[in-house]
Amino acid sequence: METTAVHSDKELFIKIVITNWELQNKRLNGLLGKLSDEQITAEVSPNRNSGAYLLGHLTAVSDGMIPLLGLGEKLYPELENIYVRNPDKSDFERPSLAQLKEYWNHVNDTLSAYFSNMQPDEWFAPHTAISAEDFAKEPHRNKLNILMNRTNHEAYHLGQLIFLK
Amino acid sequence: METTAVHSDKELFIKIVITNWELQNKRLNGLLGKLSDEQITAEVSPNRNSGAYLLGHLTAVSDGMIPLLGLGEKLYPELENIYVRNPDKSDFERPSLAQLKEYWNHVNDTLSAYFSNMQPDEWFAPHTAISAEDFAKEPHRNKLNILMNRTNHEAYHLGQLIFLK
Repeated sequence: METTAVHSDKELFIKIVITNWELQNKRLNGLLGKLSDEQITAEVSPNRNSGAYLLGHLTAVSDGMIPLLGLGEKLYPELENIYVRNPDKSDFERPSLAQLKEYWNHVNDTLSAYFSNMQPDEWFAPHTAISAEDFAKEPHRNKLNILMNRTNHEAYHLGQLIFLK
Repeated sequence: METTAVHSDKELFIKIVITNWELQNKRLNGLLGKLSDEQITAEVSPNRNSGAYLLGHLTAVSDGMIPLLGLGEKLYPELENIYVRNPDKSDFERPSLAQLKEYWNHVNDTLSAYFSNMQPDEWFAPHTAISAEDFAKEPHRNKLNILMNRTNHEAYHLGQLIFLK
């Protein structure tokens, strides 16, 4: 009975976090579906990042969760340099918008598949970028925390992408 | 032993959610501290909401968590009509920017004080706007979920407010 309760609490937490992540994805995908390619490649506000850059940025950051959560290797490691380490309008060869959208969907589908196979306890383990020493002191910095943090990050940029409408 | 584990899991999860909420508040307060009154009252992007409107909006939504989480009455119920039900540039008498900032801080301090007195189990109870029937079917729609959702909402508008810089 106690064990079931523990299990069920953890599953409930995980469900809350994944549901909130899916909600942001759903909103972003809904927005992408409404925008023309021309709208997506425009700047979200004068002299700010373009929608395409932000889509690449979000794709790279979500892709980065795969190794950070200990699930595997990044699908598109080349995106980090273009969309995270460097600003928009840098002189890099970039994926086309059609490719970017495909990458975005593939990263999210891959994460969803990984998540559905994770055991509840795995979410409460340290992510791969925190030392055992720090985790002992701050046990809330687990994998679930990473997903929550990245969900907020997505919401932040969604607030900007909405200006493309 | 089992009971301690349950307690500790719940507390850990609550800490994750509250820490993420505090992080958004910290970022927003850091931004507010860097902006002049003139900057805050400007539009975040051409023909979009003003920073002051968004600050009022976030204050009203955070204030709304007080009754939604069953903690008490709203501190500033009049904000709902001005900043949630109606758009920016509506013809209402509004608080001054100095007042708004004071309201924002007071709402957050009040929420923090309530949160520090909440028992872990309270967070896993239904919020006040969900029926018992719906909660039985979707037990993840608890008070903690509300705070996570409002944290994402704050991140969303923070992504817009940053353009005031």
